[in-house]
Amino acid sequence: MKYSYDKLFKFTTDILIKMGFTPFDSQECAKVFLAAEIRGFSTHGVIRLGDYYKLWEAGRINTNHNIKVVHETPSTAVVDGDSTIGMIPAKFSMELAIKKAKEVGTGWVVTRNSCNFGIAGYYAMMALEHDMIGITMTNASPLVAPTFSSEALLGTNPIAIAIPAKKQPPFVADFATTPINRGKFTFAARKGEKIGFGFAQDKLGNPSDDPTILEKGGAMLPLGSDREHGSHKGYCLGAIVDIFSAVLSGANFGPYVPPMVAYLPLLEKKVGEGLGHFFGAMRIDAFQDADHFKSMMDEWIESFRNAKPVQGQEMVLIPGDPERENEKRFMAEGIELIPQVEADLKQIAGRFGLKFG
Amino acid sequence: MKYSYDKLFKFTTDILIKMGFTPFDSQECAKVFLAAEIRGFSTHGVIRLGDYYKLWEAGRINTNHNIKVVHETPSTAVVDGDSTIGMIPAKFSMELAIKKAKEVGTGWVVTRNSCNFGIAGYYAMMALEHDMIGITMTNASPLVAPTFSSEALLGTNPIAIAIPAKKQPPFVADFATTPINRGKFTFAARKGEKIGFGFAQDKLGNPSDDPTILEKGGAMLPLGSDREHGSHKGYCLGAIVDIFSAVLSGANFGPYVPPMVAYLPLLEKKVGEGLGHFFGAMRIDAFQDADHFKSMMDEWIESFRNAKPVQGQEMVLIPGDPERENEKRFMAEGIELIPQVEADLKQIAGRFGLKFG
Repeated sequence: MKYSYDKLFKFTTDILIKMGFTPFDSQECAKVFLAAEIRGFSTHGVIRLGDYYKLWEAGRINTNHNIKVVHETPSTAVVDGDSTIGMIPAKFSMELAIKKAKEVGTGWVVTRNSCNFGIAGYYAMMALEHDMIGITMTNASPLVAPTFSSEALLGTNPIAIAIPAKKQPPFVADFATTPINRGKFTFAARKGEKIGFGFAQDKLGNPSDDPTILEKGGAMLPLGSDREHGSHKGYCLGAIVDIFSAVLSGANFGPYVPPMVAYLPLLEKKVGEGLGHFFGAMRIDAFQDADHFKSMMDEWIESFRNAKPVQGQEMVLIPGDPERENEKRFMAEGIELIPQVEADLKQIAGRFGLKFG
Repeated sequence: MKYSYDKLFKFTTDILIKMGFTPFDSQECAKVFLAAEIRGFSTHGVIRLGDYYKLWEAGRINTNHNIKVVHETPSTAVVDGDSTIGMIPAKFSMELAIKKAKEVGTGWVVTRNSCNFGIAGYYAMMALEHDMIGITMTNASPLVAPTFSSEALLGTNPIAIAIPAKKQPPFVADFATTPINRGKFTFAARKGEKIGFGFAQDKLGNPSDDPTILEKGGAMLPLGSDREHGSHKGYCLGAIVDIFSAVLSGANFGPYVPPMVAYLPLLEKKVGEGLGHFFGAMRIDAFQDADHFKSMMDEWIESFRNAKPVQGQEMVLIPGDPERENEKRFMAEGIELIPQVEADLKQIAGRFGLKFG
């Protein structure tokens, strides 16, 4: 069935309030869940409410948080997220990066003791209205095998970068450092289809096109798919996201990142606190006149958009184009939820004496 | 034939002095050429002396340079390279980034009016001895077609990131944002072999395994190879390197980057000055106690190196491992140059009344 933005926003907010978050925090989190829905990252949308609910029920999410800056310099800071839901320390950290950029040109904030924060692009885009470039990365629980490894040691570790333009909409890249995201495995499995090769390996490291291979000890492959096609570069990217987000902040890294789901136990070995994020804000006029820069970004975007497309394609896309199209469509037509997600949300609603649908 | 590091270093220095660079500048540049040779990036080594020589002969490289900081804030700066050989403004800019990081935690310097600077990793690694993370990017003349484009609009736009550890050698990633580098095309063509699929397309955008396709209007593909396997993510990476290096600095970007070779004319349209680079330095102790961070990096590196490898592979490699092996080998055994490169170097030597070999 289809639901309006407003309806899902209110429902998400109400659930978070019932868990014990303040109305303000709940609304701020709901914005991120809904941004995922309308930008087309439904795997990070309300489908995740069930996971957060179960983590909260298991006492792994702290609603009465005390987020703190534990270390800083004029251009940097380290934030402790106090084990709360990831969106709250993430927004706090990005705001701090923006503040520091106002003061000294750029701001760089790393966050530990956090959990999944939804879509990385949401925070990177917070920089745009300040005429800044925004950068966001996060590590995540291990699903991806580095080149030559039979073990999953890295998360899908996304990178998001938002760059303002003038007449053109902004450049917004937001991508996992793997060829596809985890959701495509679930989707193929549900449809009884193979996923194709170049996306996963079995537990020995052999190529696999089985969409259920991750539950059988297999792993996702890094961007580049195999060594010949540059998977070692995708591995580098995932590693950099992990080190910047977690080793710099004092969070758990690599194979030690805690699971996102309550049915998996916490790991015995800890090398830090929770999982980690990395946020950057660069003030455009710390480099160039902002108006000139944004005109040049228009020129950049137009050069690429107007290039001759390959046969069968309409045009060259600019990062952010597909997500803006999704936003328009889902705001106009509503957000489709599959029956399984509707059932989940009804169950959570029932737990709090609320109704869904 | 094989040559010692010292012999090639002296020869490179002498040639640059003859071109009109100061002895100091010449040695600093020669270090970068030789670092490329011994780290295994021979496509950026002395083979390029011929290209620089011809650019210099055509009056496109300024040996009597006046490199200037044209804009700055506490954490940022813009450097004008005054059309000299790329290594000199690159080293200047990275040193400035390190200086700013000492003062305010991080330093971010962009450089315009430069040309190719050799291997990106050289500059990123300059940060290591200061207990800093080093970051380097550069744009380059267009060879790569964004996803869905039949035209080459981006260079192979590398990213290098160096991160210090304690007992372990540092993590040093240095990679083009394409599956393979340009040199592999030349190498396959010379051997009369196909290059395989996933690396290039013909002038209409159809997949091609012809190693001479770039001379026939074709283009290289971004990391990810095709849309299904995430080439749009490789395109994002190449675009980010281009925008950070050139739009932020006021250099030429995308299709307007000037050619690296003198036999191609300068483009009619200019959108900035020369090509552009991006440098970052992050002081470890602006985030974490440096000693603790470096111990955690040891733990990170050991976790990955000790993971169970896939069948047929000895171990999981850490970024920087293969280059360190190359360094040991080439310093001990000498650097092999092919006859074509030897002939080129003899010709340049002759032009200046010097001898090679």
